[in-house]
Amino acid sequence: MPPAFSPTFREELHRLLAWRRDVRHFRRDPLPPGTIERLLALVELAPSVGNAQPWRFVRIAEPALRERLAAHVDAASETAATAIEGGRVGAYRALKLHGLREAPEALAVFSDEAPAAGHGLGIATMHEALRYSTVMAIHTLWLAARAEGIGVGWVSILDPLAVCRMLAVPEHWTLVGLLCLGHPEVESEVPELERRGWQSREPVRVETR
Amino acid sequence: MPPAFSPTFREELHRLLAWRRDVRHFRRDPLPPGTIERLLALVELAPSVGNAQPWRFVRIAEPALRERLAAHVDAASETAATAIEGGRVGAYRALKLHGLREAPEALAVFSDEAPAAGHGLGIATMHEALRYSTVMAIHTLWLAARAEGIGVGWVSILDPLAVCRMLAVPEHWTLVGLLCLGHPEVESEVPELERRGWQSREPVRVETR
Repeated sequence: MPPAFSPTFREELHRLLAWRRDVRHFRRDPLPPGTIERLLALVELAPSVGNAQPWRFVRIAEPALRERLAAHVDAASETAATAIEGGRVGAYRALKLHGLREAPEALAVFSDEAPAAGHGLGIATMHEALRYSTVMAIHTLWLAARAEGIGVGWVSILDPLAVCRMLAVPEHWTLVGLLCLGHPEVESEVPELERRGWQSREPVRVETR
Repeated sequence: MPPAFSPTFREELHRLLAWRRDVRHFRRDPLPPGTIERLLALVELAPSVGNAQPWRFVRIAEPALRERLAAHVDAASETAATAIEGGRVGAYRALKLHGLREAPEALAVFSDEAPAAGHGLGIATMHEALRYSTVMAIHTLWLAARAEGIGVGWVSILDPLAVCRMLAVPEHWTLVGLLCLGHPEVESEVPELERRGWQSREPVRVETR
């Protein structure tokens, strides 16, 4: 029989969801030894289409490689600024968009587009379900990290193919996200983009048919 | 200051991750009134790129529409069987792949490809980050449901465009997933695809650069 989760646990879970942040300001101190391994072991419990478990992680340890990634993201952010509407460019430039130079850990997360596991179940018409599974692995890691007081930031302003080349991963791997992990420098229940006036939360939109 | 999550909470969280299942066998009894509304309200806490909150939910209430969706998925599953390797076709046909006819609730989840919220932040080079945000909204709903003893099943064997037409959603919405919700008929800590010998869990793959 499954555990009956208590109202107290559910309240704590909601608090975890509420305090999970996209962190860009990290302290530089390293995570305790074994932390990344422990968090990644939990990813095994994430859902995946056909149980294909397509998530692949690359831990970026080499400082020079980290700097190349940071410079790449800075350049991509600069290019992206040109697409931001006029009145918001100043606000855009004031945002800190990644913590790749400070965070003690960085993980590139890929999705295997042709995993042996799963035997093709569930992806005949929506092959993207593999990448969606990898996204849920990232979200699992994110929540587990937050429950240990560790922040995660997801960097998406980058050219995924360029990052694949930089990290020399197999051709059938797609980059899903680049993550920074570490202790947050600032803690808040309110998303940073809301605190800085970029975008606040809205009620969830539901229709009925 | 953020809550300091206790070791007890973390253990419970890991148990929640371990007992979250992709459910295909549902009891037919309805969920208590207000359940779906309560679960969907928590989705507001999911992460999204640029805080764009691109998730859009359509609750399928009309029995005839539900039956059309079920018939569509059955047909897509039949077609998909032709792509399954010879030795596995029997096992494939023995799997129950959706609970669309029994589950008391069904939700189609879409991603708005051009949300006003977020003002384009973070999607200049990876527009798919919007859909990935919607996936994390689904995963949030999934975990919150499991914490209440409610099962979720994600149906992906369908033609997303056909489902968009069936539900008459705006052209700029992409179908991300079709979900069944209800009380599970069978509870297990082991994924159904593992119990039925389709695919077991594997250790998470990590490389270092």
